[in-house]
Amino acid sequence: MDFAPSARGREYAERVKDFMDAEIAPAEEPLLRRRLAAAPEARWQLDPVMAELKDKARDAGLWNLFLPDVSGLSNVDYAPLAELMGRSVIAAEVFNCNAPDTGNMEVLHQFGSPEQKEQWLKPLLEGRIRSAFCMTEPEVASSDATTMRATAAVVDGGIVLNGRKWFSTGVGHPDCRVLLFMGVTDPAGQKYRRHSIVAVPVDAPGVRIERMLPVMGRYDEPSGHGEVSFTDVRLPLEAFVGGPGAGFEIGQKRLGPGRVHHCMRLIGLAEAALEAACRRGVERSAFGKPLVNLGGNRERIAEARIAINQARLLVLYTAWLLDTQGVFGALSEISQIKVAVPSMAQNVIDMAIQLHGGAGLTDDTFLAGAWTIARALRLADGPDEVHRGVVARLELGRYGMAR
Amino acid sequence: MDFAPSARGREYAERVKDFMDAEIAPAEEPLLRRRLAAAPEARWQLDPVMAELKDKARDAGLWNLFLPDVSGLSNVDYAPLAELMGRSVIAAEVFNCNAPDTGNMEVLHQFGSPEQKEQWLKPLLEGRIRSAFCMTEPEVASSDATTMRATAAVVDGGIVLNGRKWFSTGVGHPDCRVLLFMGVTDPAGQKYRRHSIVAVPVDAPGVRIERMLPVMGRYDEPSGHGEVSFTDVRLPLEAFVGGPGAGFEIGQKRLGPGRVHHCMRLIGLAEAALEAACRRGVERSAFGKPLVNLGGNRERIAEARIAINQARLLVLYTAWLLDTQGVFGALSEISQIKVAVPSMAQNVIDMAIQLHGGAGLTDDTFLAGAWTIARALRLADGPDEVHRGVVARLELGRYGMAR
Amino acid sequence: MDFAPSARGREYAERVKDFMDAEIAPAEEPLLRRRLAAAPEARWQLDPVMAELKDKARDAGLWNLFLPDVSGLSNVDYAPLAELMGRSVIAAEVFNCNAPDTGNMEVLHQFGSPEQKEQWLKPLLEGRIRSAFCMTEPEVASSDATTMRATAAVVDGGIVLNGRKWFSTGVGHPDCRVLLFMGVTDPAGQKYRRHSIVAVPVDAPGVRIERMLPVMGRYDEPSGHGEVSFTDVRLPLEAFVGGPGAGFEIGQKRLGPGRVHHCMRLIGLAEAALEAACRRGVERSAFGKPLVNLGGNRERIAEARIAINQARLLVLYTAWLLDTQGVFGALSEISQIKVAVPSMAQNVIDMAIQLHGGAGLTDDTFLAGAWTIARALRLADGPDEVHRGVVARLELGRYGMAR
Amino acid sequence: MDFAPSARGREYAERVKDFMDAEIAPAEEPLLRRRLAAAPEARWQLDPVMAELKDKARDAGLWNLFLPDVSGLSNVDYAPLAELMGRSVIAAEVFNCNAPDTGNMEVLHQFGSPEQKEQWLKPLLEGRIRSAFCMTEPEVASSDATTMRATAAVVDGGIVLNGRKWFSTGVGHPDCRVLLFMGVTDPAGQKYRRHSIVAVPVDAPGVRIERMLPVMGRYDEPSGHGEVSFTDVRLPLEAFVGGPGAGFEIGQKRLGPGRVHHCMRLIGLAEAALEAACRRGVERSAFGKPLVNLGGNRERIAEARIAINQARLLVLYTAWLLDTQGVFGALSEISQIKVAVPSMAQNVIDMAIQLHGGAGLTDDTFLAGAWTIARALRLADGPDEVHRGVVARLELGRYGMAR
Repeated sequence: MDFAPSARGREYAERVKDFMDAEIAPAEEPLLRRRLAAAPEARWQLDPVMAELKDKARDAGLWNLFLPDVSGLSNVDYAPLAELMGRSVIAAEVFNCNAPDTGNMEVLHQFGSPEQKEQWLKPLLEGRIRSAFCMTEPEVASSDATTMRATAAVVDGGIVLNGRKWFSTGVGHPDCRVLLFMGVTDPAGQKYRRHSIVAVPVDAPGVRIERMLPVMGRYDEPSGHGEVSFTDVRLPLEAFVGGPGAGFEIGQKRLGPGRVHHCMRLIGLAEAALEAACRRGVERSAFGKPLVNLGGNRERIAEARIAINQARLLVLYTAWLLDTQGVFGALSEISQIKVAVPSMAQNVIDMAIQLHGGAGLTDDTFLAGAWTIARALRLADGPDEVHRGVVARLELGRYGMAR
Repeated sequence: MDFAPSARGREYAERVKDFMDAEIAPAEEPLLRRRLAAAPEARWQLDPVMAELKDKARDAGLWNLFLPDVSGLSNVDYAPLAELMGRSVIAAEVFNCNAPDTGNMEVLHQFGSPEQKEQWLKPLLEGRIRSAFCMTEPEVASSDATTMRATAAVVDGGIVLNGRKWFSTGVGHPDCRVLLFMGVTDPAGQKYRRHSIVAVPVDAPGVRIERMLPVMGRYDEPSGHGEVSFTDVRLPLEAFVGGPGAGFEIGQKRLGPGRVHHCMRLIGLAEAALEAACRRGVERSAFGKPLVNLGGNRERIAEARIAINQARLLVLYTAWLLDTQGVFGALSEISQIKVAVPSMAQNVIDMAIQLHGGAGLTDDTFLAGAWTIARALRLADGPDEVHRGVVARLELGRYGMAR
Repeated sequence: MDFAPSARGREYAERVKDFMDAEIAPAEEPLLRRRLAAAPEARWQLDPVMAELKDKARDAGLWNLFLPDVSGLSNVDYAPLAELMGRSVIAAEVFNCNAPDTGNMEVLHQFGSPEQKEQWLKPLLEGRIRSAFCMTEPEVASSDATTMRATAAVVDGGIVLNGRKWFSTGVGHPDCRVLLFMGVTDPAGQKYRRHSIVAVPVDAPGVRIERMLPVMGRYDEPSGHGEVSFTDVRLPLEAFVGGPGAGFEIGQKRLGPGRVHHCMRLIGLAEAALEAACRRGVERSAFGKPLVNLGGNRERIAEARIAINQARLLVLYTAWLLDTQGVFGALSEISQIKVAVPSMAQNVIDMAIQLHGGAGLTDDTFLAGAWTIARALRLADGPDEVHRGVVARLELGRYGMAR
Repeated sequence: MDFAPSARGREYAERVKDFMDAEIAPAEEPLLRRRLAAAPEARWQLDPVMAELKDKARDAGLWNLFLPDVSGLSNVDYAPLAELMGRSVIAAEVFNCNAPDTGNMEVLHQFGSPEQKEQWLKPLLEGRIRSAFCMTEPEVASSDATTMRATAAVVDGGIVLNGRKWFSTGVGHPDCRVLLFMGVTDPAGQKYRRHSIVAVPVDAPGVRIERMLPVMGRYDEPSGHGEVSFTDVRLPLEAFVGGPGAGFEIGQKRLGPGRVHHCMRLIGLAEAALEAACRRGVERSAFGKPLVNLGGNRERIAEARIAINQARLLVLYTAWLLDTQGVFGALSEISQIKVAVPSMAQNVIDMAIQLHGGAGLTDDTFLAGAWTIARALRLADGPDEVHRGVVARLELGRYGMAR
């Protein structure tokens, strides 16, 4: 149970921190302010500063750190880097470590054919294109995979896709070129061999981005979350990732590290919110006292500190389990962090907003936007309630309880 | 302790409900959809349907019901009407019963000079113009009135305003014509006689709307919340409302009924959210069961029902206290509902969002927008923490504790 | 929705308050101290002061106020009296208004035969004997009545009881003479006609008090909670209360007013705890300040005030529903208060304990004992979770959801 | 950040577990049942089985494992042993690892004179005598050490003790021989040099155990918590532990490991409660389903698992900090676990009680007793609120905030 990063991990942590301080921090606020000031449609364009920052990060070798085979970093090593990146809204993308591309690159790296790697993985790793993952559907409860309606049927020696997906994150990005689409290939097959994942060029005939979805009022430009329809989209059999029927297995494998990344970034965000709360509470006064000395504010700050520390340790423990025992040795913990961390982050950020008064509601601080990120993650990748169900099932299994 | 509305109140409740069912319900969703689809700047224009609905409501005599001297309704009578209106996002304005105009009309009605009534109150009551209340300031903790920086100085036989206000709700409305501005007139005066309220034409030289503020990412068009600067704005002495030094007294009187209105509307909103949660939970299935039969969903629905009922009763009790004992007989309760109701509504709405899955985060339902309303009210009119302080002070006063 | 007591109710409230101040308050602490100091077995004897207090209450006409046909008081009238009594641990019994005798007297009054009234109800109303209610069983989940194992079979023209009951409150009282026993008479009958209630003399052959049960370490002497076995207890058919098969109906009717009584007493207890917390917080200092001025203590006091007020209003509303629409018009609310009030009281008392430091854990204050009362009521008469289920079922029924 | 125990630690963990399974588990329930069945005064006698178990543990070398200089175990090594012991109510004492003797032995080991070691430490380490720690006082808020009233004055070449202490745990034990008493020696001295600790024979003239204190109705026989008066107790100067004025320093040093021990035992207790809840929920049915499949029970079990895991990791982290950086490198974390763990344990145990229905309130399971342990620890060693204050102070210190 050693959560300490390796020497290599520690070195990267320092370099990531230095880069963030030197390059990202001075650029971020102006960039966000430009985006807020832009006309809505203009927000979907890339800010040229992003390209510059990405070039610098690539040149500095701070690139694709999430991928063990590239970076040589374990989950325990990478977790603190993800926490650092999480303190910024743009850092993950600067380092080419942002969801959902990270998960998609992992999938293509592990399961992709040589041709898929050449066509999609290579430019993704180079940061030249972006991708999206099309799984959730508007008409069914997506936490129950058996209800999925989208199809990836084998017809006449090719694949035909039909269906409607939403919350396809990243689909709005101007560089988005490929979608990983999940659909049913063999409805009569064994339960865990029915679904397939297909790599779909975003400009394939029959693919249509119906609309971009607001999340608690925000569009998360320039990546965004799309509703995408697939109507008789025809692709060669080679477009299956990992072959037909591999969808469920790939989905499961994709989860573990991604969950750790998401959660560590949220911990970084919660730390940033706690820091903002402390600064505000120390600097601003009312009734003749610094805000932190009013009412229960100090107790709330203490509770935030305790909650963040506990959550971080649980994620590190999960990372360590992933490193030492693989996804199937960490199933409960992967669900545990999914339940514990977004709620914790939401609460800490809400506390920080409250301490900022009205300013906390505006976009003058990062808090209001950060809140939406945490809130959305209580639903993304399965709602809390479903993950509590997983944790309970594994717990009760120890006492002979069937599903 | 009779919370039952009078016969007159019951009759109005029926008519309001009928009007909402017949006129507002069919118009609301298309209107909101048009607004969402509009280009951002276009959202600040009035939808012509609003004018039609207002005309119909005025013709039906469902107009200015919030004002006892006009409607003959007590707070206990009006509370259920506010709850009904709260189920809709547009109803309050349709009935000319929306904040902040209601509070401003109350102030002008009670404290305005005949000229002020003619110039501002009359067109407000007719729904021809809108108004804003300019109190909160960006640079100080507004819950501590002694920190207010804006000034309404008497200079050379006139008033000169200087200062910067924000969260001036309604200032973005195309019909907004008058601002009630609070500033310090006599900094050396007795603590509760320092501040004045001044009626300021929105187009007075020196008044400048610096920007509209997003609240958790939303602008609440077409009313909006503005940051407004006042630079050497010169007005005649007649612009004081209630004379110089009356600001604090007016502010206190303005609070009670407004708090009840806000809270009852939130209860309507929470009821609508609970209804949406129940419908979704009954209609949508996963894992072979209706959602309500999964995990703790039924218990959460029960908790929501219990929480709403308790909150409503506390607001009705406060309304009854206001009717029978006035604002100063209800000081603790006015703060109690401010603490209890927005939190309750926020939690119920959050639960409903969670039950809707991803859809709950979008604007496909009213829930995401409703959440922001509830969240903002945990800060508007003083943060929860300050109101808990008021409740505690009054409670401890019974045991000899000084402030 | 008039929660104001009648003139008669107000008059009784004053008299009860005066009696409690003049007679009970000075006697209570010495009595409780005597009981704590007594050897355990001696605690099961009646303190002679109780008899004196009861005589005085009877003489003052403050007797059996819970029973509308005797007192002429509605539920709305009686609720404030129950709250007053709840501030004391002994008052309810002094006024002959204590559970479970009140519920048993209601049952005998409504359903008892003339002989049962003469034999049991009369001396109960006179306070000469005590009773117990034997329903819950150790081996089954008692919230599901269909699992009940105890039988009240009709054999050879008589009744034969078999089974084991526990949490039979009052069975330890030296004056306990009669048990109302619930058992299955007709296992094949219609679901709501299977159970019967039987009036059983406590000294009937085959009745055996196996042990008295501690509740969170306390025995609640001299009433106590017993585990009672019934082995071939033979009684004449006349011992059925309301005839065979009436058990379910009687059980339901018994619930409503009893729930209101329990909850109002808990509200009195919570008020007493809040008062104790305020006094302690004002009088004791640490770090140079009164305790209430440290950390979040004032906010906690405010939250307690708000929670108590909301809970009281919900109980009064339920009482009003019972008065105006009967038990079946208040089914959801009866379960709502069962969920809301004991939890609220437990939390308020816990807060008061915390403010008292170590002293709050001892029996130097009433708080530790009061906590146990509130905690036990989260399970007695059905656990919170079951009542949330009832509330949800009734709520969802409005949307077409079957059980 | 390596939380894995050493090989030596792992080996001890196995042996402790085996011993508990083989020796303690079969003996514990009968022992507790004997104690419950005994007359109250008889509960203060030692059960002969305890002596046998202690002999076996000593012979097995599972003895004084808490003391690094004896056992060679770090805090990280010992933590899992404490968790194991915490699953049982008697195990810690069987292994001579129970509070407050452990803390007292640490103090005497680190600060005691050779004579004190011979007279008190030796028999304590051998388990032949027991001890108590006399710090908290009934008349003052003990979390603020500056309010302490008890004195340990130097008079005529000797020490004279005066004062009244309570919550002196262990003072009721028949083998209790020595009290570590804290009092003010030099009221005018430097703030952290005023207090002294004095080793006081329990039978010194002037020492009087005034009464044993119930904690939430329980006396915790045979150790108990005493109120002890000290009236002109005269002792030679050699009775100072660490010399006069060393009290504060000793108190601080005593804290860290003791907090870790307490918290790990609570985690063991919470694990045992969760296990009991799962077993009950799987085995008992209502409404045709195992209890775990009703309402929110599965979600509650999941939340308990998540809460326990997070709490354990935080305690292990604190143990690791203590091992690597000492008490002063772990001040915030020592307070963090004091806040987080007892609350967590209380909540998990409360959930388990609720799942057991009425049985959970009785002493038929260990849960009711366990609840009291957790509840008391929210006050013992300083109330949660004070520790939140410490955490906040250290957090805000990073932003330049003075105390």
